[in-house]
Amino acid sequence: LIFLHISSTKTREIDDILVYTVATSETDGFQRYTRSAIEYGIKPNILGWGEGWKGGENIRYRPGGGWKINLLKKALEPYKDDKNRIVLFTDGYDVMFLSDLNTIIDAFKKTNARVLFGAESACWPDPELEKLYPVVESGKRFLNSGLYMGYAPDVYELLNYSPVKDTDDDQLFFTLGYLDEDLRTRLHFKLDYNSEIFQNLNGATSEVEMFPETNKEYTEYRLKNVVTHTQPLIVHGNGFSKTNLNALGNYLARAWTPEEECRHCKWGQIDLRRTLVKDLPTVVLALFFEMPTPFVEEYLMKIQDLEYPKERIHLFIHNNVKYHMPHVQSFVDQFSGRYKSFKQITPDDSIPEWTARDLSLDYCMQKDCDFYFVVDSIAHLDNPYTLQLLIEQNRTVVAPMLVRPEKAWSNFWGALTKDGFYARSHDYLDIVYNKRKGLWNVPFINTCYLVNATMLKKYDRTQLSYNKENFDADMAFCSNLNELDVFMYVSNRVDFGHLINPESYDVTRTAPDMYQIFDNARDWNQRYIHPDYPENFNPNKKTLQPCPDVYWAPIVTRRFCNDLISMMEAFGKWSEGKNEDERLTGGYEAVPTRDIHMNQVGWDPHWMIFLQRWVRPVQEHVFTGYFHDPPRSLMNFVVRYKPDEQPSLRPHHDSSTYTINIALNEVGKDYEGGGCHFLRYNCSVTDTKTGWMLIHPGRLTHYHEGLRVTKGIRYIMISFVDP
Amino acid sequence: LIFLHISSTKTREIDDILVYTVATSETDGFQRYTRSAIEYGIKPNILGWGEGWKGGENIRYRPGGGWKINLLKKALEPYKDDKNRIVLFTDGYDVMFLSDLNTIIDAFKKTNARVLFGAESACWPDPELEKLYPVVESGKRFLNSGLYMGYAPDVYELLNYSPVKDTDDDQLFFTLGYLDEDLRTRLHFKLDYNSEIFQNLNGATSEVEMFPETNKEYTEYRLKNVVTHTQPLIVHGNGFSKTNLNALGNYLARAWTPEEECRHCKWGQIDLRRTLVKDLPTVVLALFFEMPTPFVEEYLMKIQDLEYPKERIHLFIHNNVKYHMPHVQSFVDQFSGRYKSFKQITPDDSIPEWTARDLSLDYCMQKDCDFYFVVDSIAHLDNPYTLQLLIEQNRTVVAPMLVRPEKAWSNFWGALTKDGFYARSHDYLDIVYNKRKGLWNVPFINTCYLVNATMLKKYDRTQLSYNKENFDADMAFCSNLNELDVFMYVSNRVDFGHLINPESYDVTRTAPDMYQIFDNARDWNQRYIHPDYPENFNPNKKTLQPCPDVYWAPIVTRRFCNDLISMMEAFGKWSEGKNEDERLTGGYEAVPTRDIHMNQVGWDPHWMIFLQRWVRPVQEHVFTGYFHDPPRSLMNFVVRYKPDEQPSLRPHHDSSTYTINIALNEVGKDYEGGGCHFLRYNCSVTDTKTGWMLIHPGRLTHYHEGLRVTKGIRYIMISFVDP
Ligand SMILES: O=C(O)CCC(=O)C(=O)O
Ligand SMILES: O=C(O)CCC(=O)C(=O)O
Ligand SMILES: [Fe+2]
Ligand SMILES: [Fe+2]
Ligand SMILES: [Mn+2]
Ligand SMILES: [Mn+2]
Ligand SMILES: [Mn+2]
Ligand SMILES: [Mn+2]
Repeated sequence: LIFLHISSTKTREIDDILVYTVATSETDGFQRYTRSAIEYGIKPNILGWGEGWKGGENIRYRPGGGWKINLLKKALEPYKDDKNRIVLFTDGYDVMFLSDLNTIIDAFKKTNARVLFGAESACWPDPELEKLYPVVESGKRFLNSGLYMGYAPDVYELLNYSPVKDTDDDQLFFTLGYLDEDLRTRLHFKLDYNSEIFQNLNGATSEVEMFPETNKEYTEYRLKNVVTHTQPLIVHGNGFSKTNLNALGNYLARAWTPEEECRHCKWGQIDLRRTLVKDLPTVVLALFFEMPTPFVEEYLMKIQDLEYPKERIHLFIHNNVKYHMPHVQSFVDQFSGRYKSFKQITPDDSIPEWTARDLSLDYCMQKDCDFYFVVDSIAHLDNPYTLQLLIEQNRTVVAPMLVRPEKAWSNFWGALTKDGFYARSHDYLDIVYNKRKGLWNVPFINTCYLVNATMLKKYDRTQLSYNKENFDADMAFCSNLNELDVFMYVSNRVDFGHLINPESYDVTRTAPDMYQIFDNARDWNQRYIHPDYPENFNPNKKTLQPCPDVYWAPIVTRRFCNDLISMMEAFGKWSEGKNEDERLTGGYEAVPTRDIHMNQVGWDPHWMIFLQRWVRPVQEHVFTGYFHDPPRSLMNFVVRYKPDEQPSLRPHHDSSTYTINIALNEVGKDYEGGGCHFLRYNCSVTDTKTGWMLIHPGRLTHYHEGLRVTKGIRYIMISFVDP
Repeated sequence: LIFLHISSTKTREIDDILVYTVATSETDGFQRYTRSAIEYGIKPNILGWGEGWKGGENIRYRPGGGWKINLLKKALEPYKDDKNRIVLFTDGYDVMFLSDLNTIIDAFKKTNARVLFGAESACWPDPELEKLYPVVESGKRFLNSGLYMGYAPDVYELLNYSPVKDTDDDQLFFTLGYLDEDLRTRLHFKLDYNSEIFQNLNGATSEVEMFPETNKEYTEYRLKNVVTHTQPLIVHGNGFSKTNLNALGNYLARAWTPEEECRHCKWGQIDLRRTLVKDLPTVVLALFFEMPTPFVEEYLMKIQDLEYPKERIHLFIHNNVKYHMPHVQSFVDQFSGRYKSFKQITPDDSIPEWTARDLSLDYCMQKDCDFYFVVDSIAHLDNPYTLQLLIEQNRTVVAPMLVRPEKAWSNFWGALTKDGFYARSHDYLDIVYNKRKGLWNVPFINTCYLVNATMLKKYDRTQLSYNKENFDADMAFCSNLNELDVFMYVSNRVDFGHLINPESYDVTRTAPDMYQIFDNARDWNQRYIHPDYPENFNPNKKTLQPCPDVYWAPIVTRRFCNDLISMMEAFGKWSEGKNEDERLTGGYEAVPTRDIHMNQVGWDPHWMIFLQRWVRPVQEHVFTGYFHDPPRSLMNFVVRYKPDEQPSLRPHHDSSTYTINIALNEVGKDYEGGGCHFLRYNCSVTDTKTGWMLIHPGRLTHYHEGLRVTKGIRYIMISFVDP
């Protein structure tokens, strides 16, 4: 592997020391263990590999592990008289080396022990034994059997002081040995009370901290115990501290360093670029529409745009939202045939979320998929390489980090509270704001993630399901993964996309996405702001000026125009075009139009922010030196001109510093005639362009009129800014 | 004379009737009497003409007039047996005929009296006699001897029923005759209780009204008694009713008719146009500066501009106001030498008003003047022919009507209260508003009037003076004229000029006339509004437009500019040019100038009205369709640019809909550099013209800067309108 340029194997013959662990297969935790060993030039001997676990069931919560003693006993047989030989035993799935062996041996020798075990704060598995323990001045009193070391003859004697069954508890076995004062004395059997070498995390998570330590060559994160003021050399995520070890493991053993950043990211990473399509892994792509979601059309296009052969993808859709049926149906009609297979569950099927998600897992099994890829409707995969990159990351479970733009709300949690809910980890904000990029082992992910189906195949729905107690589907699934010791990684190595905020989405409105300018501004802009908008600021272009001080600028898309017209026509209460207008403060409008005000369709705050974000910069660009932020406006409305209703508007001034006049539909096609005539300049704009705005002074100089519409309907959107 | 085309002398031999009056000389009242007689074709016989009055002194307030009986007795001697001969006697100075003799004789014959006297409501001169009077059913009970008629033998018998001395009271004589029941019955001696013929006004002024009566040929005002429902044919302003008769006399006897208007105006009018200068009457022109008076410079120029040879004018000036010394002195230095003579009383002489006015009368006597012409400093004689026209009007005292423009305040009173103060006459408003033009006999005039010196020469300062009791000078003079039965006419036949309102004039200010825009708007405009201002609205001219939507218009005079600079430099507290500015509401100015705000020199209300009256119409003309009346403005200030102070102003917008920028001094002469640059149009106005304004949009389009002044001082006046 690739990390060996940082190697601290220097002078000592480290073959003198025998390092053992027990592992039956390559779990995520074992990979982490191995990587840490390699990092520090340690070559452990793996006992039990490929065998079935014989140390008892469910040993996280129940005693067991006697098998580990019997395996080591056998392994040490050849060294039982080798007096200088040092033996180091650690657990494998929940342990990391934080140092090379030289440092460990030096520290061991300073203890003058011949057998040294890690200590912990709880007396387990038999708390009754507590009173038999010797009293210590400081540090932890009780033996933990996950980390220990000693001279080969002494360790061997200890392992044999009494027979033990594979399913007996290893810790009870060693505890009783320790509590036997004769044996303890004879073997110089000690506990590492102050974590000079061994840090058991259970009950001690708040005592440890990471800190960056800079050596001559590089900086790496180290662990220190702030209570004992020691720097432990091996760490053990025993008991309930597994999540804590996961978090520490993102940095320790040079997983992430300030200089090289995510070193562990590259561990096991693969490259699919030269793989033939037919040899590419098959993926079940599972889309879930569990709530009304803004910008679903764009979401679906991003799904379709994923750079991964559709023929290697099985498409599974659960749509649980009636409002989205046309969107999904349109997508299905257009694209589903291109996928390797396709299955849809519609709102009419009335299938709840967790069941649908479980069905998608089953679909993966059924299709003998290689990967299972979930993309909920709020997950916008702006990066079309997301799926491919996640596969190449080669982890059991990996999620692309997705964040609500400009917010700290993401699709992962950095830490959990004791009862399993969101807690903010020390590095959460650095990660979501992309100040720290990498691959992060976290306790909770959702919305979008890739699962290696090898893992799925290991467990049936009694072990791995979205349906658990009264958890919601995501919580259920993550909780199961946590219990199965499957790591959930979230990657922010590149930008994969972002999250939609569905909270304020109100599908009882017409064109509800128009109202999402606040909660989903990025998507709103993408859909509704004219693609040429940035050209308004191109220093090599002059803004069009069809009449003196009347500027003409692309501002919104046709989609905006259509949606706005739909909103107004759905509302339908066009004004009478009379002078008396109870919508106005004064109750009187001298030059009335047939119109609907933005506030009548609840779109006033939205218009105001649009004005500030999009109109104001154009104003500042064309009317140099005029600054008024935020712009104010009390009169924002859509006007409808019709030959048989109100076809024109007589000359007038607007009560504005400047006026915005957006053409909402197309002259020559939707209507004939119309346009705006500026009388003092004898200048008209009649060839208006849909989605473009006229911006002109409202008062004093720009006396103007709306020209007669002779056929069809002309819609314009008017705003009197800074009245 | 000229009125005879209206003559009602038709069928009857009116030589059968003898009309008598007594008059010793031609007073104003006698002229009125004569005119009314001629109007109705009546030829009275004047008794006592050219003789000294022998009927007792002061007969207005004391008994007397027996002389009138003795004169008539003698005159009737030849007719004492002429049974069909009718005799009509009236007073002369206070009587008017309102009808021809036929109508009078018809009415007399209906009474079946042989002797008929007018009646009045008071028993005078001996109230004790009241109880001896017969009781009457209606009308007045008591005899008045000013109007009577009868058959010659009966009148003659009555005149001789008892001897009477010249200084005895005539009314007592006739009263006692009437109370003698034998005599009364024998002579068919009756009183005209109900004013069928004779209307004595004393005590009856509220019983009479004028009304226009239309005959076939013309309309004339008639008198009616609304109590008795009669239309009296002769009216007598006896006792305290002289002023009432004066007022009635302006209309009655066809003095003023709706068709021909002022017929009595032309009575006695002369024409000076062919008179040689050396033969023109000499005039004492007496100017009085009794209080600080706005626009005194213009006043003096109008005096100088009077179209009357200076060599026929003696100039008398009383200046009682220190503030006006430079104005008067400058006038004197320039022009006094051109007058026939010149006398000035200065503030240093400390002579009070009434004394000075009396001295001016004495000056007239001393110079043997023909006319005495007073023009107080508030009297603006806009019509240079005023003096000439007044002389030609040929009345004893005549004033040109002068009114405060747009106000009802004039230099005359149409009526008096009982205690001699202002009362509004029925026709006062019609006269001051020039709805009724003519020559009006009124009880009070002031400020400007012409007096025929013949009258002055009759009376010394015990009789005719500006010093009387505790009256002010004007009241004293008019009161004397009233007592002397001298009529005061005021003419509004043409427009002579107007009155200045000095009430708010505050000479403690610098350029106090600048503050007179409210109280003396016409004069203010004349002095301060650019003479080319009306050209701004000339439909054949285009307003200059040196930069897009920047207009350039003449607005104020150089005098305005100089006065405004003086105001500011006298105040002197130019701002620091810092961002912090406690004069502003926000306390902060982003683009500060060195300036003084209008409100710091108390000129804000004035500016606001200037803005409304003069700037706004230009704005409406150039920025068509924009109406905002009144304009609002919180920022009105004069800016001073100096190379070593603040020489320029960085690019900015103004907080205005439009901005006014008036050049107050002259580029190239007063300073070099400067001007206004409009950045968005890359256009500058540097050749600014004093008194011209730039008017330009303040915000949005007209980003602008003040260009660097390299030498001298540039002053501009800035106003941010409709912020
Ligand atoms: O018809 C147009 O383009 C002008 C509309 C307009 O001026 C207004 O609504 O105020
Ligand atoms: O110097 C000038 O003419 C411009 C002055 C100006 O823009 C201002 O005072 O706001
Ligand atoms: Fe408009
Ligand atoms: Fe300015
Ligand atoms: Mn164990
Ligand atoms: Mn363990
Ligand atoms: Mn008398
Ligand atoms: Mn009389």
